[in-house]
Amino acid sequence: MFEKCLNAVKIQSPLIHTITNAVTMNDVANMLLACGARPLMSDDPVDIEEITSITDGLVLNLGMLNPRKYEGMLLAGEKARSLGHSIVLDPAGVGVSAFRLRAAKELLRRVKPDAVRGNLSEIRMLLTNKTGRNGVDADASDVICEQNKEKIAAFAGEAAEVLGCIVCVTGAIDFVSDGKQCFAISNGSAEMSKVTGTGCQLSALVGAYLAANPKEKLQAVAAAAGTMGVAGELARERMLPHEGNASYRNRMIDAVYHMDEKILKRHARLECMFDMDKGSKRE
Amino acid sequence: MFEKCLNAVKIQSPLIHTITNAVTMNDVANMLLACGARPLMSDDPVDIEEITSITDGLVLNLGMLNPRKYEGMLLAGEKARSLGHSIVLDPAGVGVSAFRLRAAKELLRRVKPDAVRGNLSEIRMLLTNKTGRNGVDADASDVICEQNKEKIAAFAGEAAEVLGCIVCVTGAIDFVSDGKQCFAISNGSAEMSKVTGTGCQLSALVGAYLAANPKEKLQAVAAAAGTMGVAGELARERMLPHEGNASYRNRMIDAVYHMDEKILKRHARLECMFDMDKGSKRE
Amino acid sequence: MFEKCLNAVKIQSPLIHTITNAVTMNDVANMLLACGARPLMSDDPVDIEEITSITDGLVLNLGMLNPRKYEGMLLAGEKARSLGHSIVLDPAGVGVSAFRLRAAKELLRRVKPDAVRGNLSEIRMLLTNKTGRNGVDADASDVICEQNKEKIAAFAGEAAEVLGCIVCVTGAIDFVSDGKQCFAISNGSAEMSKVTGTGCQLSALVGAYLAANPKEKLQAVAAAAGTMGVAGELARERMLPHEGNASYRNRMIDAVYHMDEKILKRHARLECMFDMDKGSKRE
Repeated sequence: MFEKCLNAVKIQSPLIHTITNAVTMNDVANMLLACGARPLMSDDPVDIEEITSITDGLVLNLGMLNPRKYEGMLLAGEKARSLGHSIVLDPAGVGVSAFRLRAAKELLRRVKPDAVRGNLSEIRMLLTNKTGRNGVDADASDVICEQNKEKIAAFAGEAAEVLGCIVCVTGAIDFVSDGKQCFAISNGSAEMSKVTGTGCQLSALVGAYLAANPKEKLQAVAAAAGTMGVAGELARERMLPHEGNASYRNRMIDAVYHMDEKILKRHARLECMFDMDKGSKRE
Repeated sequence: MFEKCLNAVKIQSPLIHTITNAVTMNDVANMLLACGARPLMSDDPVDIEEITSITDGLVLNLGMLNPRKYEGMLLAGEKARSLGHSIVLDPAGVGVSAFRLRAAKELLRRVKPDAVRGNLSEIRMLLTNKTGRNGVDADASDVICEQNKEKIAAFAGEAAEVLGCIVCVTGAIDFVSDGKQCFAISNGSAEMSKVTGTGCQLSALVGAYLAANPKEKLQAVAAAAGTMGVAGELARERMLPHEGNASYRNRMIDAVYHMDEKILKRHARLECMFDMDKGSKRE
Repeated sequence: MFEKCLNAVKIQSPLIHTITNAVTMNDVANMLLACGARPLMSDDPVDIEEITSITDGLVLNLGMLNPRKYEGMLLAGEKARSLGHSIVLDPAGVGVSAFRLRAAKELLRRVKPDAVRGNLSEIRMLLTNKTGRNGVDADASDVICEQNKEKIAAFAGEAAEVLGCIVCVTGAIDFVSDGKQCFAISNGSAEMSKVTGTGCQLSALVGAYLAANPKEKLQAVAAAAGTMGVAGELARERMLPHEGNASYRNRMIDAVYHMDEKILKRHARLECMFDMDKGSKRE
């Protein structure tokens, strides 16, 4: 299932308009190139609608948000929506301020993204309004593991229903749901949390996979999460004795660069948590 | 010819004021350090003229352009011009919006750069006014190869005449012309297009080489293109099995760091396409 | 002495609000993660006080300063001060313009940082008001070596007294003083000056070490300088034949990632230059 989505990106090479933060921008651009897509990153209102018009998909990332960039996101988002482009919202650090939470909610309402990608704390924030500490990381109470898998799957399904789009909740296990179906992807490595911007990179991959697979959105988002998770594992295996998070960052992008259907098929650990069309229920 | 230009940068270590985009800024700074120059990257109008005054050369890159930065570029550019600094314009993604195209033309008119460095689509845009899709990459119809070499050389020469400065058109083969003479540099590797900002990095190298070789501008620009192309080839040869575009990025900067006259002389493939002073004509 | 400070960062994992420049932001974030801290990098006045409130320490870096970011620094700085957070000021390139020098002085006055980290030219600038060339690097006349060690130690002590905070003067040898005591740390490698942002990275480390060791500030700053210097040496030893400044950058962050008390103890070369409480004097 994932392999087709991965190949579509390589064949179509979609141009992805990414409005994101300066911290992780370079890695995000190289990650998009690694998967076969092409990045374009302008963020100023002055010409953003024109730029959105020549691209194939949009990724909005709230990291380091400021009023100018937020205005750009609204303009780009409404333009992309009117053109039928696929749109991803990454509510990075949505809990750090009321401004960021308001912006996320307004973007959800006006731009209607196809998918939202965040950690458990960020997605929870979109549903509950409570801002608080921990910045861009998930709260300690929001750890995902085998034991609470059913519960998180149900939460992802509920979030998808409430937010009206595909939700991708990432952590030790990733969950992708459109409300009716939910996939769990058990790939990745703990080292991923030691590199800045792995979440931003995944959101960009989601944007590329969605743009190249507009008719299979749920599969596309799950395939992006699978690609990133498998890359995280392969990068971990390839680390040499003295290598740390900086080398790991490179190895992860490199692994996506070499990812193909065979590698993805061999390593991806995908599980259907529920499928309401087939009679299974959310917990 | 190239070797003298390369050594001049290492000996003089010029301070290069680079106003560029946040996507590739870090790589550009490390590339300037790799070649022996020193980067300075402030971009705000508040103190930009003062900053330009203490530097040795200026590089203006239109990636992620916004009105504030554009105002800074005009101020820095006019200041640098009045001080006789060498100036490079990189019309990155000039085709993505009318704002960016207007900015490029205004900078050409008011700042009078010594050199313009872009891909074929970008340079064409400066002459023809047509904006359009593809973002920061060259259009598919703008592929450079052995077969159309004469034609592109003639185009580079014409562009240099019209724009009133040295033009460096980069692709599978790079062309450097001042209108009267034209060099083709057949170095580089396809992987370079899989790393964000290799064009930005070359433009910065051009800035460093020009600042250190103000009396041999055409040679300086060609030497910068040769250095980057040879680095791209050496980086390609050194890639290990699992390495992809992230590692390649590092290997390219590393190759410039170790570049010396011997390596450059051995690997650079330079050809004079025409020299009107010696009686040869543009096609 | 250093080991306790290093472990405190790993155990507490402080969230460090870092307002810095786009050139080195990504490396700074990965360096903070490498040492065990967590980065948060928002810089806009719109929500900066709220963001400061949820963090554990603040780092202000003047690279690429603009009025919007400066306003953010004042708001964040005064908030952090009122909350008793540890604060570091990095007067990066303070000599490039009158705006940057005024900003540094105003931040010193209103925010009262716990520590200032800069090269000899930058720290001198804070005391003498003379702006001038050389950008972000130390002046040629400001080279630190074994021969002028006593003099620089005395200067660091005097600077600490005048600025009213811990001063960390970095170069071939680093000096850390609170006016009464002064440590010299003779670690590091010349390659560090060939990577953009090693100073920014050290300032962030200082921020993390201070936040985790509020009762031993002088030791914390010295431990951060020692960690960075030892990492620079280990990274140098591990460089392979063709590797240059790009790979060195990764190896340095990787070395901090693997730094532990044993490694630090074995390699750190620490010397007490004076201790007025124990009767020794500044030169």
